[in-house]
Amino acid sequence: MRDLLLVSSSVVHGYGYLEQCEADVRALFSNRKKILFFPFALKDHDAYAAKVRNRFAELGFELTSIHQTADPATAIKEAQGFFVGGGNTFRLLASMQNAGLLPKLRSRIRAGVPYMGSSAGSNLACPTIMTTNDMPIVFPRNFKALELIPFQLNAHYLDPDPTSKHHGETRETRLREYHEMNELPVLGLREGAQLRVQGDRAQLRGIHGARLFRRGREPVEFAPGSELNFLLADANAE
Amino acid sequence: MRDLLLVSSSVVHGYGYLEQCEADVRALFSNRKKILFFPFALKDHDAYAAKVRNRFAELGFELTSIHQTADPATAIKEAQGFFVGGGNTFRLLASMQNAGLLPKLRSRIRAGVPYMGSSAGSNLACPTIMTTNDMPIVFPRNFKALELIPFQLNAHYLDPDPTSKHHGETRETRLREYHEMNELPVLGLREGAQLRVQGDRAQLRGIHGARLFRRGREPVEFAPGSELNFLLADANAE
Repeated sequence: MRDLLLVSSSVVHGYGYLEQCEADVRALFSNRKKILFFPFALKDHDAYAAKVRNRFAELGFELTSIHQTADPATAIKEAQGFFVGGGNTFRLLASMQNAGLLPKLRSRIRAGVPYMGSSAGSNLACPTIMTTNDMPIVFPRNFKALELIPFQLNAHYLDPDPTSKHHGETRETRLREYHEMNELPVLGLREGAQLRVQGDRAQLRGIHGARLFRRGREPVEFAPGSELNFLLADANAE
Repeated sequence: MRDLLLVSSSVVHGYGYLEQCEADVRALFSNRKKILFFPFALKDHDAYAAKVRNRFAELGFELTSIHQTADPATAIKEAQGFFVGGGNTFRLLASMQNAGLLPKLRSRIRAGVPYMGSSAGSNLACPTIMTTNDMPIVFPRNFKALELIPFQLNAHYLDPDPTSKHHGETRETRLREYHEMNELPVLGLREGAQLRVQGDRAQLRGIHGARLFRRGREPVEFAPGSELNFLLADANAE
């Protein structure tokens, strides 16, 4: 049974690193101890791993970064939980593809090992990375990701600023463009929102809500605490 | 001799469609009459072509959209100027790749036929589309573009907002990530800025300036009117 925590942003205004979602992190990994970290979305893997290891130690977990293991396949097999950190989603996906890690990780998560993603790591849980906000700084083999859920997320979702004089596309415009070419619903997670998925149950958690975009339909708002199980069943129904 | 006008944004606050850069458009296409338009960055080609055709008619040009020509290859061969409009850069690039239009267009522009790009159309003039702000809503064969200039542009360049409480990456952070993985300089064109390239001469024009990002160096500001010829010679020198 899948057990996921998909966080919009590891840092939220007024909170420290992974502070706003701390209770959900503890709940996700509750009786597990050994967490395997994937640092590939940032360039400096050692520095990233050190920062996250310290934070997880505060929470009582023992974190190992996969780039520092002798045998990544075995590390994935033996881990009691996974955390994929944020950064650039194209770099993350290409690294995972090049190292052949996606199928191994996917099968362990489908077997029930808890998965936490933040920002790019939440994008990686989707069918594709096509709703990332990141710059395409690396060319991946394709845009296919872990497909742990049957819909897309947009992390750091940002409402349009009615006072803006900028004519670059708003996030809502970008997501409408996505739906001109693609079918899957997209849940825009505001910073401070996270999605907990347990089997066929999905709950929106955190301090800010989310906005659901579906092809040919008006966007719909959801407040923290909302049950979004329908997105797991038939994401375009409800 | 290449003759290019690369516009950051077709619409600038306080101006109509292609109004701020109107004098430069007239100068670029001066004694030409028949302009060929590429509408592929937007979904609705007919509507896009109609809008641009009207605007170009006001300026005294006769504009044909390539999607309405019987034989695109011949249309490219016979056109006296090209305009690639803005929208989603991934969709634009993939369409051009699928239709096999990039090599044909490139060779005509290198032979001296004037090229104007706006936003996504300016990205298409670069070596790759890796510095686009757009969402990857379509998977292209690769990220290689027309390479009419030897450096990258970032259209709609936006300075960081010091009052922001949002933790998504700023444009400057995204470009730093680009330089963690890539070498080419990136000229961030603010809305209201455009670059005119004539042979080995490049001049920044418009009402707002540009910011140049180079790997391992501090960003540099350029005001409208600046000569940027060094970017065409050896973009990392100066």
